Amino acid sequence: MEDKNIVVSGMRPTGRLHLGNYFGALSNFVKLQNEHKCFFFVADLHALTTAYDRTENLALNSKQMVIDWLAAGLDPKKCTIFVQSHVPEVSELATLLGMFTPLGWLLRNPTYKEQLNELIKKKYAGQEDKGAAQKIAMLAEQDLNEMASFGFLGYPVLMATDILIHKATYVPVGQDQIAHLEIARDIVRRFSDIYKSDALLEPKPLLTKIPKVPGLDGRKMSKSYGNTIELGEDLESVRKKVMAMFTDPNKKKANDPANPDGCAVFAFHKIYNKDFAKKEADCRAGACGCVACKKELFELMAVEIDAFNKRREAFAKDEAYLQQILKEGALKARESAAKTLSEVKKVMNIL
Amino acid sequence: MEDKNIVVSGMRPTGRLHLGNYFGALSNFVKLQNEHKCFFFVADLHALTTAYDRTENLALNSKQMVIDWLAAGLDPKKCTIFVQSHVPEVSELATLLGMFTPLGWLLRNPTYKEQLNELIKKKYAGQEDKGAAQKIAMLAEQDLNEMASFGFLGYPVLMATDILIHKATYVPVGQDQIAHLEIARDIVRRFSDIYKSDALLEPKPLLTKIPKVPGLDGRKMSKSYGNTIELGEDLESVRKKVMAMFTDPNKKKANDPANPDGCAVFAFHKIYNKDFAKKEADCRAGACGCVACKKELFELMAVEIDAFNKRREAFAKDEAYLQQILKEGALKARESAAKTLSEVKKVMNIL
Repeated sequence: MEDKNIVVSGMRPTGRLHLGNYFGALSNFVKLQNEHKCFFFVADLHALTTAYDRTENLALNSKQMVIDWLAAGLDPKKCTIFVQSHVPEVSELATLLGMFTPLGWLLRNPTYKEQLNELIKKKYAGQEDKGAAQKIAMLAEQDLNEMASFGFLGYPVLMATDILIHKATYVPVGQDQIAHLEIARDIVRRFSDIYKSDALLEPKPLLTKIPKVPGLDGRKMSKSYGNTIELGEDLESVRKKVMAMFTDPNKKKANDPANPDGCAVFAFHKIYNKDFAKKEADCRAGACGCVACKKELFELMAVEIDAFNKRREAFAKDEAYLQQILKEGALKARESAAKTLSEVKKVMNIL
Repeated sequence: MEDKNIVVSGMRPTGRLHLGNYFGALSNFVKLQNEHKCFFFVADLHALTTAYDRTENLALNSKQMVIDWLAAGLDPKKCTIFVQSHVPEVSELATLLGMFTPLGWLLRNPTYKEQLNELIKKKYAGQEDKGAAQKIAMLAEQDLNEMASFGFLGYPVLMATDILIHKATYVPVGQDQIAHLEIARDIVRRFSDIYKSDALLEPKPLLTKIPKVPGLDGRKMSKSYGNTIELGEDLESVRKKVMAMFTDPNKKKANDPANPDGCAVFAFHKIYNKDFAKKEADCRAGACGCVACKKELFELMAVEIDAFNKRREAFAKDEAYLQQILKEGALKARESAAKTLSEVKKVMNIL
């Protein structure tokens, strides 16, 4: 193996994964494990940055996510799979990196502000129509510092640590995470500058083409919209959801010509149907009714989903194997992490 | 041993300890080790919150501090002596506690603001007289977030962790640290409230009578004033410093009556001289010249300092013993810390 690249990526275990997560990230993980040295982690500490008061299913979600990963084809022989909180070195290094990360970098981070606004919107949901919008805006301003926790503000430092601790060369990121990766790179430069050391490496973003996965209603597939198809969902439930998918609202009869561009069903055909170009032409020509189109899609999805679900069930039953994978993954991740941590401690002159 | 109290305290290894540190804290440690279960730690991570860019002597300072502690009478058989960074559980728990610590608590913390002002004053030292005070004040405001690091802001969370991780019942604090301890208590209450758990205990402050130790110039003894007598300083150097100590400036001749209240020499007589009441009367009556008074003080100090220095030298030579103490101390501290960490992880439902 000539490839020297190291790839690190994680996912938050905030609930069950859905097809959006699968096509947006997980299927890419499966591809990457064959090309580079990869570390994939369950980002349970990251989940706590926003959901610290809703942890009742955290351990369960973490497990379920690893089962999804295995069913999707992640192979512990090809990559390192671990749970973030099982690697104490991550918290140790994050503590050290935080010492020289300027507060301003974190307060100015656009994702911080966006996520804060999301939190505030959630808190005041339903109150907007009471005509007290201005009062709420003022409240919200005051609330900023109460809504955000120290860990929430420090999320980019923790994320940088996850990456830097394994000396990642590449990080697969979505467009919305580029700012975070930039902070990781800034932290490396500041570290190198202060301590005159190359113990940390600047990771590069690995932007990958991600198919657009809409939810059942045509918007982005997202748990908060309630428009998802979960990994592991049973076929009958998937069938019902597919049959209820959003299509072109201007198409009234089965043989009306229609526009497939905003149609959720067509978006999935693009993913599951090799012959989607014909579907598109048929749709525009009014040669295919939506019910038939949905049935055809479901048949195509059912083959893959059924196979996935069978693999998933097998992994879900084998608790011992899961524990073994997580134990071995943590050991491998800790070995890699301890090496970097020890180098950093040395250049910082820690006893 | 009926006493169930657990006491935790640390000192920052920012340089050599001086008599102010000795009488202000270390001598109290020595007393406490006989009364309670004590954890005393070298707060090297805390030192990084402000001095992350001046770490060249951090490891050395940490060692020297432990040697001072041993020479002062701390006994690893009676208490647990360890280096903060040798206990990874501290960073792990701090990461978890930070997740639900509101940013507002830290930004409002008076010590944070005070220390920031100190940092800013240092940065702009010498520029005040350029008539640009207002401009500097504005600059300073903008600079706040750049001067302060994430770790600096999070200092109270780390301090709370040091205390809570050993389930301390008491923390010896100076008046200026009460705000920090209050945050530790607030963190416990918030934890108990969110997770319905009593895994963390609210520590109480242990306010102790601390003798006033002036520096050579009569101000508070402090490294930043350059008015200290260091632990381990050789006797000849101490003699010179004592002979140059600040006395009542109104006393011109040896038999002038004088006021001992602001006199550094008299303040030290109060510590080293059992018969200090007679010294006070003599001073007020003009019955004792300052030179004689200083000589008498030095003779008294020399006995103790000489004995301390001899013990210190012996410990300084025994690197193997020092390593053994730190290794055993870390093991004991980690055992205690791991227990609390594991309880916290469990109630937070971390896998």
